Amino acid sequence: MSRITCPVLTTRVTTAEVAVEQIGPGDNVGMSGFTGAGYPKAIPTALHDRIVAAHSRGEDFRIGLWTGASTAPDADGVLAEAGGVSSRLPYNSDPTMRDLINRGEVDYVDAHLSHSAQHMWFGFYGNLDVAVVEVAAILPNGLLVPGSSVGNNKTWLEQADRVVLEVNHWQPREFEGFHDVYYGAALPPGRRPIQLTDPMERIGDPYLRVDPAKVVAVVETDRPDRNSPFSPPDATSHAIAGHVLDFLSAEVAAGRIPPSLLPLQSGVGNVANAVLAGLDGSDFTDLVAFTEVLQDGLLDLLDSGTVRAVSATSFGLSDVGVERFRDNISSYKGRILLRSEEISNHPELVRRLGVIAMNGMIEADIYGNVNSTHIAGSAIMNGIGGSGDFTRNAFLNFFLTPSTAKGGAVSAFVPMVSHVDHTEHDVQIIVSEHGLADLRGLSPRARALRIITNCADPSFRPALLDYFERAQAARPQAVHTPHLLDEALSWHQRLLETGSM
Amino acid sequence: MSRITCPVLTTRVTTAEVAVEQIGPGDNVGMSGFTGAGYPKAIPTALHDRIVAAHSRGEDFRIGLWTGASTAPDADGVLAEAGGVSSRLPYNSDPTMRDLINRGEVDYVDAHLSHSAQHMWFGFYGNLDVAVVEVAAILPNGLLVPGSSVGNNKTWLEQADRVVLEVNHWQPREFEGFHDVYYGAALPPGRRPIQLTDPMERIGDPYLRVDPAKVVAVVETDRPDRNSPFSPPDATSHAIAGHVLDFLSAEVAAGRIPPSLLPLQSGVGNVANAVLAGLDGSDFTDLVAFTEVLQDGLLDLLDSGTVRAVSATSFGLSDVGVERFRDNISSYKGRILLRSEEISNHPELVRRLGVIAMNGMIEADIYGNVNSTHIAGSAIMNGIGGSGDFTRNAFLNFFLTPSTAKGGAVSAFVPMVSHVDHTEHDVQIIVSEHGLADLRGLSPRARALRIITNCADPSFRPALLDYFERAQAARPQAVHTPHLLDEALSWHQRLLETGSM
Repeated sequence: MSRITCPVLTTRVTTAEVAVEQIGPGDNVGMSGFTGAGYPKAIPTALHDRIVAAHSRGEDFRIGLWTGASTAPDADGVLAEAGGVSSRLPYNSDPTMRDLINRGEVDYVDAHLSHSAQHMWFGFYGNLDVAVVEVAAILPNGLLVPGSSVGNNKTWLEQADRVVLEVNHWQPREFEGFHDVYYGAALPPGRRPIQLTDPMERIGDPYLRVDPAKVVAVVETDRPDRNSPFSPPDATSHAIAGHVLDFLSAEVAAGRIPPSLLPLQSGVGNVANAVLAGLDGSDFTDLVAFTEVLQDGLLDLLDSGTVRAVSATSFGLSDVGVERFRDNISSYKGRILLRSEEISNHPELVRRLGVIAMNGMIEADIYGNVNSTHIAGSAIMNGIGGSGDFTRNAFLNFFLTPSTAKGGAVSAFVPMVSHVDHTEHDVQIIVSEHGLADLRGLSPRARALRIITNCADPSFRPALLDYFERAQAARPQAVHTPHLLDEALSWHQRLLETGSM
Repeated sequence: MSRITCPVLTTRVTTAEVAVEQIGPGDNVGMSGFTGAGYPKAIPTALHDRIVAAHSRGEDFRIGLWTGASTAPDADGVLAEAGGVSSRLPYNSDPTMRDLINRGEVDYVDAHLSHSAQHMWFGFYGNLDVAVVEVAAILPNGLLVPGSSVGNNKTWLEQADRVVLEVNHWQPREFEGFHDVYYGAALPPGRRPIQLTDPMERIGDPYLRVDPAKVVAVVETDRPDRNSPFSPPDATSHAIAGHVLDFLSAEVAAGRIPPSLLPLQSGVGNVANAVLAGLDGSDFTDLVAFTEVLQDGLLDLLDSGTVRAVSATSFGLSDVGVERFRDNISSYKGRILLRSEEISNHPELVRRLGVIAMNGMIEADIYGNVNSTHIAGSAIMNGIGGSGDFTRNAFLNFFLTPSTAKGGAVSAFVPMVSHVDHTEHDVQIIVSEHGLADLRGLSPRARALRIITNCADPSFRPALLDYFERAQAARPQAVHTPHLLDEALSWHQRLLETGSM
């Protein structure tokens, strides 16, 4: 059965090679895609070819590339390889694109994901020339059935001058009804409260809207999302998860959170999946997630019934997870809702719902400032993503990390972070495999003792304590946040010079 | 006419010397007070005497001191002088208290003001033993007419085991009706949307509530708030204000904000007052403020009619301003609303209303990270206050500062800030007397050129450019945020060693 049943849009069906003529040098292009799910599968490669051809003729051809978040090698990757991107926002994890950003060849704007759509509406990013959005189907009335991510698609479809749709037959047609796209957004001063009080409440439509007059091309594809291989949790991740679960149990026992906890947000990756796996063996039941990404661990929890429902903006599954979801898709209906990222990450909702946020990091300093984005101050890794949206507004926030990296050569705990993404005013709980530092209500000096003693690797503890003590002795009249400025970043400098801290 | 007309509470009237017996060693005490307005006038001095007497007997006597924000010499000041404070939150500007914090004798928790009340409810700060709250009157039914600030009073009154009320006859009795105290707050998962869509909408009660059974003492006072001398804007402030106003005019012309702007938030001080003064001579009309503090500049704008109304949590007036307000109080009724600081600073409301935020700072780095709190990394000045609440969630945010301090010896623009309170992901517009740097949608390298060229003092520009260029040359494969880690904090180190950057 055809996925494209809207008469007027049926007339726009064409090939990627023809459709890509709609994108010209200097255009800003808003693409779908979030955590490697729901990105366009055909246009980026066709655009790569068009750009390479232009470059071979000596012509300049670069675009501004805006997405939901990370995409895939056949989206970010091929466009980076073509040298076809001048600027990029709001999040990237593609290694080729990252390399160009770090070489100064791509201007990267690393924005809070809850800000990216509204900053586009506010006019802060300039005009959006083209939207390229993957969907699962086009209905007879022109409404669009979204696919495996929503991200910024609503905004790109609304704001772009021209729209190219990719209808991907690989996306389950049964996705219809899995989405809740909020159409109540407005510009100030006309904004209203977002009337959501439970993670699974529907406040929008199951469909994306598009003005058919703007749709210049529709391209059909049949290609899978980029999915990551699944790696089972290791001993370090298990240990971190154990500390988190013990802490949550203690908070329940103290009466500070309900036995079914509060809505969970969890970053992607091995450590996050270990925490989720740990929940499955725990006494916690009737849990709910209000998060960005639905990863394998959450699918397990949905299957076991430990988690009753998940609100997110995207899937971020392994190959195994994708197959499991596709094979049992009807069992998830009504228990999974995908929303726009402005809603999945909205400060108003994260604070109201009292989210428990769990994210990874690159490093923390002894006073509780967290670096989520930069290696040794200068080179970006991925970006802040939604970690700021959730951390600042959460009921409880956790930062989870192994205590060392690079076989023990690098400490995740340093005298001063080389870049700050989450300030000492925001960070509550830090966890490594060695233990947990509860920083709530503590002064910077008290935080330092707790982080060094509970979280740092024993091989780095003496040096951290030594720094802390010498910093206090050096300027006893200035010990609110004791630092030795000529030494604060020396661990990172040593890393650059010797490969080890 | 008596200010205390509730029969049961009339029986609790006593002296400060008797009332203060309710506060013992180790107690956590929640006091009223915000920007030197509405703090208790009698109990702190009586407590000072009690503490000094205990210390002279060799007894330990220190309290945890929680407030709305800054208080006054006869509150924070006397308690600091007595050595009677073990911990302090969420904001302080008292020099004696600051000195003890920086000497490590007081543990200071520098919290976002929109977080302080809820973190108390969440149980993160421990038990609140006593509330000491100044009010303007007690009504026959026991409801309390608030005074010149609301701050965290609602929370302290609700949460404390024991309550001491100070009824200050100096506070105008006509304050009745100037307040809107929201009583819809709840703990997750029971939280509801805050249904405020205009800064002047009433969503609460004009009165504070207290359980009469908890009121252990009522003390009458007749003493003025601590008010600051008014200093007229200088040339530097005028220049900064001019750049802000030109920018706002250009944004209106570009259609990005309405001709009557969006709700204004403005920090306290000379520069902020200069911007407000500039608005009075501008074409902008029908303005409204959604802010923390109502300072002299806003009073002028209310008088001229340029601003139609102000929502805040506190007054922060000069002596002259206070007299003007008191003499004409009836003319302000319905045009000024004081709210709890959790509402005046609420992320949900700041984002929904699209606030234009303007705050001062200590320094910014060339990549747009802002330090609002620390001198040379270690010594705290005041605290983050509400600047994070407003900056992160604003439609537009500005950071305003003279380009130099200490007669030109210190640059407000440095290679790397010595402490981060507002990250590169949050900061939009930086302004000095030399010009304005619009950072919206820019990568870190592009921000650097704009900040150095537009804002830094010419005497520091060559050294900043030199750093920026050498940092790019040193590691060409890592220039997303180019830094020389062994030099990044050298300007501050030089300042410590030589008194000059």
